[in-house]
Amino acid sequence: MTDVTPEEAERHAKKMAKKKAARDKIMATKDGEKGLIIVNTGPGKGKSSAGFGMIFRHIAHGMPCAVVQFIKGNTQTGERMLIEENFSKLCQFHTMGEGFTWETQDKERDIAAAKRAWEKAKELILDPEISMVLLDEINIAMRYDYIDVEDVVAFLRDHKPEMTHVVLTGRNAKEPLLEISDLATEMGQIKHPFRAGIKAQKGVEF
Amino acid sequence: MTDVTPEEAERHAKKMAKKKAARDKIMATKDGEKGLIIVNTGPGKGKSSAGFGMIFRHIAHGMPCAVVQFIKGNTQTGERMLIEENFSKLCQFHTMGEGFTWETQDKERDIAAAKRAWEKAKELILDPEISMVLLDEINIAMRYDYIDVEDVVAFLRDHKPEMTHVVLTGRNAKEPLLEISDLATEMGQIKHPFRAGIKAQKGVEF
Repeated sequence: MTDVTPEEAERHAKKMAKKKAARDKIMATKDGEKGLIIVNTGPGKGKSSAGFGMIFRHIAHGMPCAVVQFIKGNTQTGERMLIEENFSKLCQFHTMGEGFTWETQDKERDIAAAKRAWEKAKELILDPEISMVLLDEINIAMRYDYIDVEDVVAFLRDHKPEMTHVVLTGRNAKEPLLEISDLATEMGQIKHPFRAGIKAQKGVEF
Repeated sequence: MTDVTPEEAERHAKKMAKKKAARDKIMATKDGEKGLIIVNTGPGKGKSSAGFGMIFRHIAHGMPCAVVQFIKGNTQTGERMLIEENFSKLCQFHTMGEGFTWETQDKERDIAAAKRAWEKAKELILDPEISMVLLDEINIAMRYDYIDVEDVVAFLRDHKPEMTHVVLTGRNAKEPLLEISDLATEMGQIKHPFRAGIKAQKGVEF
């Protein structure tokens, strides 16, 4: 059926048994649990999608969670529909943006929206019932200084309940936030379909 | 309320109006629709989570989709529970792996499992009713040559229905796959909580 010789199979089994033993030893030291500060940044795709992937894992385990969208306004997305229609008891969903800066063309309104979203975010993070809060695109609001990265860092450091996970997404995450994060990922763009004249599609981008 | 001066507000509005006009002009050329070959690779987190984020978008829009897991065996994950319990009519879920290579310690069994998973994947991709197929961790199976990357590339290139999206995840995606992909993202690791002795946690990693 396959071309694995008995000798090769045995070598493989020994090598993997050794690998497993080494791995088990390492994993035994990783026994801590902690609410994580998770940052998804970079120019590539998947920053928000991966955030929502974790929100859906929370929902699956019956763990209360919440989403605050800092940029997206009232456009309907799949993730929002799915959560609002099926899981609104487990996951609060707050779209508090007004759209991208070039849509609103109103800096004062953008700043006010970002500040309102951050107030809501703090309230949700402090809620002892909530286990994960996704702050979608908050990095954009910090990048333009609509909210101060130092305020966000100080709040997370001093007030985040120990077991609460906070996920912060968006390009250009600022350095002080990366410094206090526990898990930070840079999504890099290898290829993007816009280059080939393909628009954002239902079920992929929204 | 904020410190935006009237002059600054006007400058901002003009600049953003210009940006929007330029953007709208570009976006008008992006009117194509196409089933995408999407690759999430790299050493960082979020490859599978982002894949599941898109699967949940599909489910939200009522679009039939499917998942084949190439490595994960019968361990229960949040995403699988959520889909099997709530959305099994919209999304087929096939966990066809036997666990990681160092768990099975049996190369022939690993190869047979990968080949079975790839047969199922082809069947799902060819199904005209299904709009997205997530091939979770398939890159690992190709990396170890359990399935041949050239077979996968030839099949996707010659037989994938035009509007079907196929998402392939896992580290070390091979070059021929990246070449035929429409959207490829490299998840890079900036920080990882294992370093701090934190184990994989419910609602985050599974």
